[in-house]
Amino acid sequence: MPVYNAPIRDMQFLMHEMLNASSLNQYKKFEDVDVDFMDAVLEESGKFATNVLTPLNVVGDHEGCTRNADGSVTVPTGFTEAFKQMSENGWTALGHDPEYGGQGLPGIMAIATGEMQSSANMAFAMYPGLTNGAIKAIEIGGSEAQKKTFLPKMISCEWTGTMNLTEPHCGTDLGMLKTKAVLNPDGSYKITGQKIFISAGEHDMSGNIIHLVLARIEGAPDGVKGISLFIVPKFKLDADGNPGEKNGVSCGSIEEKMGIHGNCTCVMNYDDAEGYLIGAENKGLKVMFVMMNRARLDVGMQGLAQSEVAYQNAVAYATDRLQGRSLTGVKNESGPADPIIVHPDVRRMLMETKAFNEGSRALIMWATLLEDMEGVHADEKFREKADDYLGLLTPVIKGYMTDKAMQTTIDCQQIFGGHGFIEEWGMSQFVRDTRIALIYEGANGVQALDLVGRKLARNGGRALMTLSKEIDDFIAEHSGNEKTAEFTTGLKDAKDKLQEATMWIMQNGMTNPDNAGAGSVDYMHMMGLTTLAYMWAKMAITAQVAIDGGSNEEFYPNKIKTGRYFVLRMLPMMDSHLAKIKTGAEPLMALEAAAF
Amino acid sequence: MPVYNAPIRDMQFLMHEMLNASSLNQYKKFEDVDVDFMDAVLEESGKFATNVLTPLNVVGDHEGCTRNADGSVTVPTGFTEAFKQMSENGWTALGHDPEYGGQGLPGIMAIATGEMQSSANMAFAMYPGLTNGAIKAIEIGGSEAQKKTFLPKMISCEWTGTMNLTEPHCGTDLGMLKTKAVLNPDGSYKITGQKIFISAGEHDMSGNIIHLVLARIEGAPDGVKGISLFIVPKFKLDADGNPGEKNGVSCGSIEEKMGIHGNCTCVMNYDDAEGYLIGAENKGLKVMFVMMNRARLDVGMQGLAQSEVAYQNAVAYATDRLQGRSLTGVKNESGPADPIIVHPDVRRMLMETKAFNEGSRALIMWATLLEDMEGVHADEKFREKADDYLGLLTPVIKGYMTDKAMQTTIDCQQIFGGHGFIEEWGMSQFVRDTRIALIYEGANGVQALDLVGRKLARNGGRALMTLSKEIDDFIAEHSGNEKTAEFTTGLKDAKDKLQEATMWIMQNGMTNPDNAGAGSVDYMHMMGLTTLAYMWAKMAITAQVAIDGGSNEEFYPNKIKTGRYFVLRMLPMMDSHLAKIKTGAEPLMALEAAAF
Repeated sequence: MPVYNAPIRDMQFLMHEMLNASSLNQYKKFEDVDVDFMDAVLEESGKFATNVLTPLNVVGDHEGCTRNADGSVTVPTGFTEAFKQMSENGWTALGHDPEYGGQGLPGIMAIATGEMQSSANMAFAMYPGLTNGAIKAIEIGGSEAQKKTFLPKMISCEWTGTMNLTEPHCGTDLGMLKTKAVLNPDGSYKITGQKIFISAGEHDMSGNIIHLVLARIEGAPDGVKGISLFIVPKFKLDADGNPGEKNGVSCGSIEEKMGIHGNCTCVMNYDDAEGYLIGAENKGLKVMFVMMNRARLDVGMQGLAQSEVAYQNAVAYATDRLQGRSLTGVKNESGPADPIIVHPDVRRMLMETKAFNEGSRALIMWATLLEDMEGVHADEKFREKADDYLGLLTPVIKGYMTDKAMQTTIDCQQIFGGHGFIEEWGMSQFVRDTRIALIYEGANGVQALDLVGRKLARNGGRALMTLSKEIDDFIAEHSGNEKTAEFTTGLKDAKDKLQEATMWIMQNGMTNPDNAGAGSVDYMHMMGLTTLAYMWAKMAITAQVAIDGGSNEEFYPNKIKTGRYFVLRMLPMMDSHLAKIKTGAEPLMALEAAAF
Repeated sequence: MPVYNAPIRDMQFLMHEMLNASSLNQYKKFEDVDVDFMDAVLEESGKFATNVLTPLNVVGDHEGCTRNADGSVTVPTGFTEAFKQMSENGWTALGHDPEYGGQGLPGIMAIATGEMQSSANMAFAMYPGLTNGAIKAIEIGGSEAQKKTFLPKMISCEWTGTMNLTEPHCGTDLGMLKTKAVLNPDGSYKITGQKIFISAGEHDMSGNIIHLVLARIEGAPDGVKGISLFIVPKFKLDADGNPGEKNGVSCGSIEEKMGIHGNCTCVMNYDDAEGYLIGAENKGLKVMFVMMNRARLDVGMQGLAQSEVAYQNAVAYATDRLQGRSLTGVKNESGPADPIIVHPDVRRMLMETKAFNEGSRALIMWATLLEDMEGVHADEKFREKADDYLGLLTPVIKGYMTDKAMQTTIDCQQIFGGHGFIEEWGMSQFVRDTRIALIYEGANGVQALDLVGRKLARNGGRALMTLSKEIDDFIAEHSGNEKTAEFTTGLKDAKDKLQEATMWIMQNGMTNPDNAGAGSVDYMHMMGLTTLAYMWAKMAITAQVAIDGGSNEEFYPNKIKTGRYFVLRMLPMMDSHLAKIKTGAEPLMALEAAAF
């Protein structure tokens, strides 16, 4: 059975030493946050993940969800009890607004506890995850009355939420959606249509399910300009705001999927279901997009989370499994063979995963802290910067981190040899669960297009220019430090190559937009590598400061060694990506569609 | 339901136009081979794959194999009938020795029909595949009597075969194996022990199962020097050579796996089972290794086969699915959206897969033809070269081709968006089935070590030197042709970089063998890319000759366009691999094992 232990020391290093996140307590909103409190939360969260959620991960995979004859859905054994415990212990309320019953902790705490839950049990963690998305949408677009009615119960996860976008004939291209909304005399709407791929669409763990549904109001314009967002509760609320009569929404079937079996992915049928408009008519997509943008950080986190748990189990196996001898002489004389961790290629896969995990954890925590700061910082210039960075980083965190996590989970599975292919060992599940993260919340190719097509050019390219300047300043400040020179040099090299790629895409994308599209995924990876190089330089310098300050904790030199792997063995990918980008669209588009 | 159509035109191009394989008929052994005959076989084989095996692929995945209470195993619905048909129609006998009932066709025909069967149904194709391995082992090491007794029935697949190497505590490191053999007075042996991961270990499709089992004879030396190979039939043979009394071998359980569900992966328990020594005592590993080496070409082929079928289905989806509009203007005015094949990133994934598939099909056919020639060619120098090349290419075909197929099947799944994650669409199965090919017959990391640790250095590096010379001569011969200059230039660049990597590994592997191990997988990929560059140059020139000769078949310019994608967009990976190799072992091995 796979194990999981929350990487608390690494999270503490990032939060306290590199990012100084507790300084958020200078702002009223976060005045209660301090290091001890944060540590206590991490500790308890880790225990919950290890003791409660981890054992249910294989159960969920094995049993899956069951749709019963009456259309109700039963979740895997143990999920309901664990969900109750999660709710009662306040884990779902952690990062939410105290006005509606949340605990008001900063997002950086929520992303840390979220990572733990997702490592321990991704399919389970999606139930509160989807609810978070629905909460966010109501927060952004809902009326005060809607917020008061729905948010408190959703924040506690007494009620859960869903997001209903996709229809059989449209996913990425929502302009084609057909679900209809007809105004009732009382101001509510009748919603009719079919939605597919609805995670957590129907289950028996919560008193109500609050579906957020995109639909087209009768007579609205075609395409993306005529889409509105509705709240459609599974049970209509009675006069006291409690779940009453069943609404006209039902689960038609559950999809059989490659992974995340513990989460029910439903076909949802809306048949004159009562729905309540969120915000203005025909403005639903905007609300949904703000919410989805936020959700993309969580999907990137899911990639990291699976990579982390796969890594931990691969380390355990590589340390235990005796097979063959080291190329440089016997390392385990008393045993029949050496542990396979002596083999360079096993090391390569472990180091690649470790360097990715720690780098991308830094990236997502940095981004989340920026988001926290954006909400409280007095300086408009800073808030603008934070918003710019988040715009730029979101597709990278979603796309690059999940692409890379696919590779690292496969590598970690590979370390198990034949055992990796056997479900009992659990490595297959990590790979299968990770797979969805490259697809949902906008497939990674769409993220890449968002990056090169929108985010780069926005405000005359201000976001990347600001970030480049910040990196230049950072390099200038630290390049004199010989002990960390490899990191600043590596960062500079990466940044220069990213700049070259940016220039190429800007110039050649104008003459032919397909040139931008053809290099978009390579560019997203270059941005991922460059921002990780920045994070690694920051981490290495932070660790070096601790060493220079006299610490003899092994954590610090190990951090630097892991970072050196990143600089020396992962950054070289920049060259290949750059070369591919500069070939442009022509070799990709040369064939007629019929010639494939 | 996924579709499959055998890529017959591409196979014909390779066999007839590029490789001129029918010239094998100058040798007595292959005197009946001609183009028409080869085409007829390809045609019929394609029909069998499409009509009989393809529909059973999802059935096999869904049903899996069942171990009954009595230890017998039931295969998925329809498998037994299809297996009978396969046997009766002679497909299993195709490439085997006519002396024992085979049809004596060249290996290049067997690899082509094998690819078709494996694309259509990998799990199914493994039953004759494993039997081929067992046949090969008996051919290599068995006595004349053993050959006469077992081969005819195995070639017809009236009896099937298995390979029993792995035990719970050892896979790669066979020196640790514990299965025991005790000599009986009649010269047979009693075999006792447990083997795991035995594909096709027990089932109800054949009259007998011939297990080839590695075991240690009582008193034999420890380690790899004391391992012998035995034939252990499921049913002992009676005086007439027919299956009689049940032998002491049974299936203890079936593994639940990530993929290839249609093939039963068994734990096999040997309990004083009667076994017959193949070849000499303590020389079993050598026979097994020759056989496994051959089997590795088939595993590389499995990677290609899955990549091909995933590609075909992704093309169909990308052509049908309407979503979004082309960046360069509407392409499907009458429709609500353009087919997604207009998007450059969808093209990227399709082109990458197509260029890989066609390049690696050329590589494996070239290698297989070398093997055919090795068996008949009069010139000892040629036979030596063929053997050298096969030694070098085998780990590349196994390791590089399956690594890359993992990526392409995932990319093809990605093209389906959310539908790719739903089992019903079949793309998940291609990914899950492909996954095992990176592991079995020696994990890809072990292949890479075999390449840099053994194959490169053997005979003073003769194999790579000969191949480099051949490539140099080829470039010199064709570099004057402007129409295909991109291909020869790309090939030269790749070859130079491979040479640089080889030099680095040779020099630095001597001072520290971990330097070779640390770069081994990158090196294997460089060798894969370089040999594919050679294949693509040959294909492009062959196509150009046809064009210059007046052909207006679209196949030829399309072939060149696909090859240009390979040269411009895939060869740039060489730079990153080279840079990684040259960082050596230090950054990989810097951490203490306890620091992971």
